[in-house]
Formats: sequence, C-alpha cells, structure tokens
Amino acid sequence: MSTKDVAADLVKMWKAGEFMESGEKYWADDVVSIEPMDGPMARIQGKKDVRGKGEWWDNAHEVHSAEVEGPYVNGDQFIVRFKMDVTVKESGQRMAMDETALYTIKDGKIIEERFFFGG
Amino acid sequence: MSTKDVAADLVKMWKAGEFMESGEKYWADDVVSIEPMDGPMARIQGKKDVRGKGEWWDNAHEVHSAEVEGPYVNGDQFIVRFKMDVTVKESGQRMAMDETALYTIKDGKIIEERFFFGG
Repeated sequence: MSTKDVAADLVKMWKAGEFMESGEKYWADDVVSIEPMDGPMARIQGKKDVRGKGEWWDNAHEVHSAEVEGPYVNGDQFIVRFKMDVTVKESGQRMAMDETALYTIKDGKIIEERFFFGG
Repeated sequence: MSTKDVAADLVKMWKAGEFMESGEKYWADDVVSIEPMDGPMARIQGKKDVRGKGEWWDNAHEVHSAEVEGPYVNGDQFIVRFKMDVTVKESGQRMAMDETALYTIKDGKIIEERFFFGG
C-alpha cells in the first residue's frame, strides 16, 4: 500500500472512532509515539507500550465528539488534524482539544507518530 | 526566541499576508523547502532560491483570500494549515487550496519547510 492509501484508510477508521483498531492494523512493532510534553509520555517506543498509552487515554477521557481533517500527504509522511470535545474524567474538566499529528509510514506501517498541540 | 515565539510571530505575519517578509526575517541561509511533487520545485535549498520560488508563486497566482490555522507545536517543530482561494493566472483556473506545512526551527530561523497537500 502506498502512503496515500494507508493515510486514506487510517482517516476513514478514525472518522469511525476506531482509534485502537487502527493501531492494531497499522502500528509497526517498533513504532515510536512522540508527544509535545515532558515526562513518561514524551516518547514511547514499541507497539505494546503505544497500545498501553492509547488504553490509558481512552480510560481517562470521555469523548463527546471528534472531527478528523486530512490527510495531507508528502512522500512517506502525512499530517492529520484532530478536533475533539472531551471531558477529563478525573477532574471533570471539559475541554476542546485541537491538535495535529505527523505520521511516517514504512512498508505500509506507522513507524512514527508525532503529535503537535494547538493553542 | 523559542520555537513557540517564532511560530506565533510567523503566523501573525502570514495572517497579515506578509509571506515574503516573513521569509526574509526567518529563513536560514541554507533553508530547505520541500514540496510534495516531482520536478524542480520538489526540493530547493538556500535562501536565495527559496525566495525565488516564493516570487514565482506570487506572480503565478492571484490570492482572493487566505486562512491560516495554528501553530501546532512540538519541540523545535510546528505545523500550520493554509486554506487559500486562488486563481492560477496562466490557466484562469480558480481553486481552493488546502495544505499544511511542517516547519523546523534552529537558532530562531527556519531551517526546513515541508509542505503537505490535502484532498
């Protein structure tokens, strides 16, 4: 699959809310996930740990709605924008998240996902 | 200046339509500009040639309106989304452009700009 095909399928799955399913299908075994923050979430490597991060996020947030824009493609990379209306369960704080992510594809799998925060 | 400060100033300039001025202020001497296409525009290096590309683009298009969204920041990089309503002067074709760009900052200057096309 070309990067464009992988990007199109991933965006389709995300629009359907299939975030964990998309990871199972497309994360490479040694995928690296990078967040714009300090601490243990800053850089996670390996499908098992990235899955764990996703499960943590899923459990910690209630998602009221999500919009996915893109993909924007260049070579083996693409960018997607996520706008989400979420409540942080622990604090009860409801917030509008606006972020973009840069994905790098190799052999049809995500080898890196790098998140960028708006605002 | 931090990457966040540079990003904020650049977005402010772009919202004011100051695309060439922003380049003069922030392009590093050896800046690399990467487009998602084949041919001579695919990868241009050096402030002089990147300025030339900007001038070519400016002369070839009439911009009716432009929206700038972002910046989305992570470390020394940030992403911006550009939505433009333009007419290609040579063909007369009017089109809606929707693209994102990934900027890499070093010592307060843009050392790489990498464009991603939507649609």
